[in-house]
Amino acid sequence: MICIGIDVGGTSIKGAAVDEKGKLYERFVLPVDPSCTQNELMSQLIDMTRNYINSHDFGEKVCGIGLGIPGLIDSTNGIVTFSDNLRWEDLHVAELFEKELGIPTKISNDANAAALGETIFGAGKKYKNTVVMLTLGTGVGGGVVINGKIFDGNCGAGAELGHTSIVYNGVQCACGRRGCLEAYASANALTKQTIEAMEQDKKSLMWEIAKEQDKITGIVAWEAEKKGDPTAKKVIDQYISYLGEGILDYCNIFRPECIVLSGGVAKQGTNLTDRLVAYCEKQEYGYPRAPKTEIKVAELGYDSGIIGAACILLK
Amino acid sequence: MICIGIDVGGTSIKGAAVDEKGKLYERFVLPVDPSCTQNELMSQLIDMTRNYINSHDFGEKVCGIGLGIPGLIDSTNGIVTFSDNLRWEDLHVAELFEKELGIPTKISNDANAAALGETIFGAGKKYKNTVVMLTLGTGVGGGVVINGKIFDGNCGAGAELGHTSIVYNGVQCACGRRGCLEAYASANALTKQTIEAMEQDKKSLMWEIAKEQDKITGIVAWEAEKKGDPTAKKVIDQYISYLGEGILDYCNIFRPECIVLSGGVAKQGTNLTDRLVAYCEKQEYGYPRAPKTEIKVAELGYDSGIIGAACILLK
Repeated sequence: MICIGIDVGGTSIKGAAVDEKGKLYERFVLPVDPSCTQNELMSQLIDMTRNYINSHDFGEKVCGIGLGIPGLIDSTNGIVTFSDNLRWEDLHVAELFEKELGIPTKISNDANAAALGETIFGAGKKYKNTVVMLTLGTGVGGGVVINGKIFDGNCGAGAELGHTSIVYNGVQCACGRRGCLEAYASANALTKQTIEAMEQDKKSLMWEIAKEQDKITGIVAWEAEKKGDPTAKKVIDQYISYLGEGILDYCNIFRPECIVLSGGVAKQGTNLTDRLVAYCEKQEYGYPRAPKTEIKVAELGYDSGIIGAACILLK
Repeated sequence: MICIGIDVGGTSIKGAAVDEKGKLYERFVLPVDPSCTQNELMSQLIDMTRNYINSHDFGEKVCGIGLGIPGLIDSTNGIVTFSDNLRWEDLHVAELFEKELGIPTKISNDANAAALGETIFGAGKKYKNTVVMLTLGTGVGGGVVINGKIFDGNCGAGAELGHTSIVYNGVQCACGRRGCLEAYASANALTKQTIEAMEQDKKSLMWEIAKEQDKITGIVAWEAEKKGDPTAKKVIDQYISYLGEGILDYCNIFRPECIVLSGGVAKQGTNLTDRLVAYCEKQEYGYPRAPKTEIKVAELGYDSGIIGAACILLK
């Protein structure tokens, strides 16, 4: 079985054929020209996909096309309701692909597609019941996979896991609410927390590390903490506590077998997950009788978006 | 189609036959004798269920027995892992019923069963995709119904919707965490908030109303507010804000078509729901493009537990 997975980003669109074992074929890439209209870009993408399929011999027919797209996606009807990054609105993606290429097409929010990919071929592949993924990047994206299928609520508008409040009346979030997990646990939030702590402690090692790296990022506090800087330790402990509260929420709501973390912050690996486990254990509802939720980092890396998008139709 | 629904409570167990239209037959009731062991009580309940079935002519065979039980319920395996109220532990309820009565038996957490009943025959019956129910009583119970089925996570230990934190490092919750929705939005929490406000304002009308009612309950502030008491209004506004934050979380996570409220606080009807709608509108993720989530009060009333339990097997 062969499906095409397409990972739509704000600057480029990547795609490839993926088989039922998760094997990836040659990739194609379409740079996003910001001067194009949404329909022009769609035409380019459909042409590129057609050429890609025609120029490859996969040994069997391509039986589906899946697209992971950032924004508010009506997965039921295959429509991009609104994508801020791409400036797409009310774009009937699935219909356009099916009409032009005659291949069943489904779309999903990119974070949901990535969660599906990790559940089927990545860190969550051992687990059958429920897997939750949190992407800790510029924002906090989320995806929920229940019995091998994406759960995304009415018209695909759910699973906005970065937009639940963890601090009552807290920091203003870009979504309009206050105190969202995204405003406390994204890589951007960690950077902001790092800068604030550095301002308070001009002697912190973090200044040196930021200078070496030529900028202040979410990595600075992790590196300084490893070298024994107490202010950096405070930043990380506080960050773990914010993210830990979000993770505890999702343990109690979904009782997933596994929570998978991806995005920039997840590069800390077990240094991140061990501390989250230490923070969360014993606080989950029903402890010690309730089944345990594992916390892992994502495994699929760079191609997770393509693989996840293909998975929408692979299973 | 006829199923037996059994609503297990800490002081009494109620049951009845329910047909596929939600019609309830005569009820049976078994008082819970606290001096009985769990196995003795099970024997009594199985005997009573057998006698009930044998003494009624439903015109067709009983094809299932469903039980809604408070506590940590392993719905996958039909086992009560732990029920604090009933002091039951590791009790293989479904197996015992099936062995003795030869009728397929399933169990679920009582809040999940009630949510299913409301979705199939009550306030949520118009909605097909996702319905979330919150029960605002002594604690905050929760249930999630996706495509007509209970979602309860790994081994049925999820959907603990009262145990997500809405106030970082907030009030201690009975579950062990701090700041849980239950600690701010249960009827008990509202009573506590009312008492605190009364202590601060000895001239509040709430004192008079509490005297009339002979005790301070969650109703006192609602009644005093109707009569223009400004301190009561503050209590209710604050309560709406806590519950509203929980509801916004569940809108963004599940994007349900409807959130159904039940329990003591829900008796306020549209006075409650209109204010929650006013609090939540425009704050939901993706507003105004995302589909709207309705907020309603439960409709099934006293029999919701029985009907919900029967629904586990009716559909």
